[in-house]
Amino acid sequence: MSATRYAYLGPEGTFTEVALRTLPEAATRELVPMVSVPAALDAVRNGTAAAALVPIENSVEGGITTTLDQLTSGEPLMIYREVLLSITFALLVRPGTELSDIKTVTAHPAAQPQVRNWMAAHLPQAVWESAASNGDGARLVQEGRYDAAFAGEFAAERYGLEPLVTEIHDAENAQTRFVLVGRPARPSAPTGADKTSVVIWLGDDHPGALLELLQEFAVRGVNLMLIQSRPTGAGIGNYCFAVDAEGHISDRRVGEALMGLKRICPNVRFLGSYPRAGVAPEDVRPLRAGTSDAEFTEASDWLARNQDGRA
Amino acid sequence: MSATRYAYLGPEGTFTEVALRTLPEAATRELVPMVSVPAALDAVRNGTAAAALVPIENSVEGGITTTLDQLTSGEPLMIYREVLLSITFALLVRPGTELSDIKTVTAHPAAQPQVRNWMAAHLPQAVWESAASNGDGARLVQEGRYDAAFAGEFAAERYGLEPLVTEIHDAENAQTRFVLVGRPARPSAPTGADKTSVVIWLGDDHPGALLELLQEFAVRGVNLMLIQSRPTGAGIGNYCFAVDAEGHISDRRVGEALMGLKRICPNVRFLGSYPRAGVAPEDVRPLRAGTSDAEFTEASDWLARNQDGRA
Amino acid sequence: MSATRYAYLGPEGTFTEVALRTLPEAATRELVPMVSVPAALDAVRNGTAAAALVPIENSVEGGITTTLDQLTSGEPLMIYREVLLSITFALLVRPGTELSDIKTVTAHPAAQPQVRNWMAAHLPQAVWESAASNGDGARLVQEGRYDAAFAGEFAAERYGLEPLVTEIHDAENAQTRFVLVGRPARPSAPTGADKTSVVIWLGDDHPGALLELLQEFAVRGVNLMLIQSRPTGAGIGNYCFAVDAEGHISDRRVGEALMGLKRICPNVRFLGSYPRAGVAPEDVRPLRAGTSDAEFTEASDWLARNQDGRA
Amino acid sequence: MSATRYAYLGPEGTFTEVALRTLPEAATRELVPMVSVPAALDAVRNGTAAAALVPIENSVEGGITTTLDQLTSGEPLMIYREVLLSITFALLVRPGTELSDIKTVTAHPAAQPQVRNWMAAHLPQAVWESAASNGDGARLVQEGRYDAAFAGEFAAERYGLEPLVTEIHDAENAQTRFVLVGRPARPSAPTGADKTSVVIWLGDDHPGALLELLQEFAVRGVNLMLIQSRPTGAGIGNYCFAVDAEGHISDRRVGEALMGLKRICPNVRFLGSYPRAGVAPEDVRPLRAGTSDAEFTEASDWLARNQDGRA
Repeated sequence: MSATRYAYLGPEGTFTEVALRTLPEAATRELVPMVSVPAALDAVRNGTAAAALVPIENSVEGGITTTLDQLTSGEPLMIYREVLLSITFALLVRPGTELSDIKTVTAHPAAQPQVRNWMAAHLPQAVWESAASNGDGARLVQEGRYDAAFAGEFAAERYGLEPLVTEIHDAENAQTRFVLVGRPARPSAPTGADKTSVVIWLGDDHPGALLELLQEFAVRGVNLMLIQSRPTGAGIGNYCFAVDAEGHISDRRVGEALMGLKRICPNVRFLGSYPRAGVAPEDVRPLRAGTSDAEFTEASDWLARNQDGRA
Repeated sequence: MSATRYAYLGPEGTFTEVALRTLPEAATRELVPMVSVPAALDAVRNGTAAAALVPIENSVEGGITTTLDQLTSGEPLMIYREVLLSITFALLVRPGTELSDIKTVTAHPAAQPQVRNWMAAHLPQAVWESAASNGDGARLVQEGRYDAAFAGEFAAERYGLEPLVTEIHDAENAQTRFVLVGRPARPSAPTGADKTSVVIWLGDDHPGALLELLQEFAVRGVNLMLIQSRPTGAGIGNYCFAVDAEGHISDRRVGEALMGLKRICPNVRFLGSYPRAGVAPEDVRPLRAGTSDAEFTEASDWLARNQDGRA
Repeated sequence: MSATRYAYLGPEGTFTEVALRTLPEAATRELVPMVSVPAALDAVRNGTAAAALVPIENSVEGGITTTLDQLTSGEPLMIYREVLLSITFALLVRPGTELSDIKTVTAHPAAQPQVRNWMAAHLPQAVWESAASNGDGARLVQEGRYDAAFAGEFAAERYGLEPLVTEIHDAENAQTRFVLVGRPARPSAPTGADKTSVVIWLGDDHPGALLELLQEFAVRGVNLMLIQSRPTGAGIGNYCFAVDAEGHISDRRVGEALMGLKRICPNVRFLGSYPRAGVAPEDVRPLRAGTSDAEFTEASDWLARNQDGRA
Repeated sequence: MSATRYAYLGPEGTFTEVALRTLPEAATRELVPMVSVPAALDAVRNGTAAAALVPIENSVEGGITTTLDQLTSGEPLMIYREVLLSITFALLVRPGTELSDIKTVTAHPAAQPQVRNWMAAHLPQAVWESAASNGDGARLVQEGRYDAAFAGEFAAERYGLEPLVTEIHDAENAQTRFVLVGRPARPSAPTGADKTSVVIWLGDDHPGALLELLQEFAVRGVNLMLIQSRPTGAGIGNYCFAVDAEGHISDRRVGEALMGLKRICPNVRFLGSYPRAGVAPEDVRPLRAGTSDAEFTEASDWLARNQDGRA
């Protein structure tokens, strides 16, 4: 294992690399592009990388199911950081190419829903073919296989291309969320603006199990930010739930909610507590009355006094 | 203070005395009748009695509000035992009296709803007047002030009366529940068939506060046996709730529920955990999955491991 | 039956009579005092009175159990109006009596908790004996049986007594709530500030039944004002619940909640929808979003369109 | 528009075509393969097809997000039928090819997770490249572009290939669910074993909104079968929920739950009520007490009687 290597979903020149370089420690790490999310996470699991940055959620397409499924099954991994990146595309071409010259366009399939409307308006005749990644698409344009590629503007230089059009994005506020994943260890220290991720398997098919799951959070005043169902592999209709909750596992309310889930569900996998990207502690929604650590401690003391006859 | 004196709601010859004598330790205590529930409880508060037995619930009339209000306010007291007593009345008369001789009848007002139908059928002309207690009613018959008294059959001998009719009770299964109350100390040891009593004040007038209160119990699988609203004295519509729950304060699920209440409610008063009268541990409803002490401990360990990065 | 006669809990000169006289229509009715709440309600049931005014809730003592139990069982009755009355006592004496002359005091037992502290401070030596009603207590003072009676100041003249002290009340804001009860008919018209009373029996002993009951109200945004448990007569631990909810049975949210209760509970008794005493429509808590009649109608229309394929 | 044409996700020879042919009416329709889910659904929207069969859920990969997003946005469509198909792959090759000859393999990307383990065990050296569909992959093998394709065994004959290995599936019980989608009209008639699909948008970011959504179903005893979050396009963390519930929109409990959602949520889109594939009415989970149509009707009658004073 190498503590100095960080894997990421490659190739070079994709949004993932840009996201990774926003982390201060990236400057002192060897950044290694991998061909797929499973490959990047396997590098962590087998110790050839200390951590891996992979996309996990996209404001246009939703959860990145490959990443979710990799975190949900196999040898446990943990999330230590998240990065939010605004996604806008450039149309990259070989120098000299004009819009009217473009007959074929390529990019990773995930880019398609984000540029579909723009293409219909500006390149109605162009044929779309999918590439393995946006970086790979740019390379194929360089090689002359396609006339243009949608990719991040930063990829132009690397492949000797020119950004013919920039700031292309069908949806306003298109963002992708990336997570830095490592082997399980002590969670990131709490910052006051944290998030906790878990995967929860419900028990035998009893209606209302999801409601009970949510109540374990609600009764302790823990707000949910995201809940996603993923198939368990046991056949149609069998799902587990990936949940992001506000707060840190070291917060008493979060800990008690997680213990409640652990008791009533056949399986719970803790995926990490880590700082929320782009949210300062002062921007966090105020806690519901009665759910601060101080109030938990006060209630514990009260209980102990009553149990001991010292109330 | 005298550890050897037990006060009870007197006078001698009432159901309360009979209930008290069902407790094994009563044989070695000095049993002192008091004129009222407040007087009996004040004897405990000021140390002239070690404990007091008072009625708290009646299957015909419901909660004994005087007792509830005494436990709810003033210097804290705690319940250590409960006693269930089947209530049937005898019609006590001076020797020689026959049914047709009876023009006036007396008893404590609480007896009236339990004998009303019987009186309408068998003594339609008799006039009812209330006595301060059933024992007192019997005494007044002895003195010739009334022709008959409803009281426990056991009271006949003490007052030189005869039970003209026995087993009188309008409602089947008429029972009264009594509690043995002392100053706050370590609760009774858990037996596996226990009950926990608390009084809970809800906060400012927000709809749904009662629902939240119940959810603190429900989410931990703690079953409620009884909930009674009592006025707080702050005006019409202001109530606190006296709650009896299954389980003991030393059970993890009960402790966590109580801490939850303590955190979200402005005030919670613990009234004691004590053995359920007439219920053996094997008769207790099975716990909901995930709420045993072993499962709480297992979940705590799991949480600690995740917090420490040893999962 | 006489549409012109209103029964009330007598005798004359009690707070109930004062409460009844606050109703405009009382001026044109024959007001008939009855010896007890059951007697007053039976007069309605058997048609000798069109309606009866009886106390139902007291800010010091809580629910008036006799009234609740009468409404809960027997031939159905319905509430059409409520009256709130502030309760303060006067100490009534025969002319010439001074505080230091008073050795014996009387009143209805319900008065005792409201004057107990005052008595301890000002008449520490006086002996209390209970009277059948406050009016009756005043009469007994007139007859010389007791030295003083606690009663409403208005009772002085009727019994030839003098109010030696007025405005006696241990609790601030001491109030009693009275209800005008009649045989079942169309409920009072909605005013925008209404209350609905029901009695609800839970089914077989299943934990969580009370929670489900409350959720039927909560999910439709119907706020509860009061919930009181009353024994069903089927033995210790068997209770039904008397509930006061905000809103009128003709409000869609209230109607849907009542239907929900009717479906899941073995028995529900509707006790009436009637104007809230002392609350104007503009003082009513705003409805939760999505619970107005207009929103119910809109949702019904939407459902019908979808069922018909016209969405 | 043509009532006789059914579109489906092509090309010919895919599982979708097989699923479509399980519908009896397919025998009398012109079946038209389309290049994508959006193309198939657009054919319905613009009237060139009466209906389209598209995959919506896969026991290995989860919800088919393209289909969900197409149903969630754009001009409304409705589901009228569902088809469940067990998915097992055959390895198709040109006649004479043996396992040891295979250097390149192709199929639609969705096939990959279902054959990954098998490939690792039996074709560890082969290189995978994605095809636009499984049928297209088979065609490319026929043309000599790849050595083998994973596809349904039924595709072999069409492309002149041979199934070298059959019954390949990493996960037991691998199934895909397809839905037959048409323009909005009256829903399919209830059969006693039905399913209702809706998409629900939650309001402004208030914690607990998802819990409230689930309670609208739970309080009416409507069981949920599937809940999937999909991004709304308004940025990271903004999701709507696609929900499948047991029952038919014409069932009173389902209708009342839908109206409840309509009232509290800013938007609800009804996607149809239709027969559950592979479930007979006698296999449906029994209704919770109090939620049958008969009980709804009885409760409505009871409410009306109370509103009219005829209880």
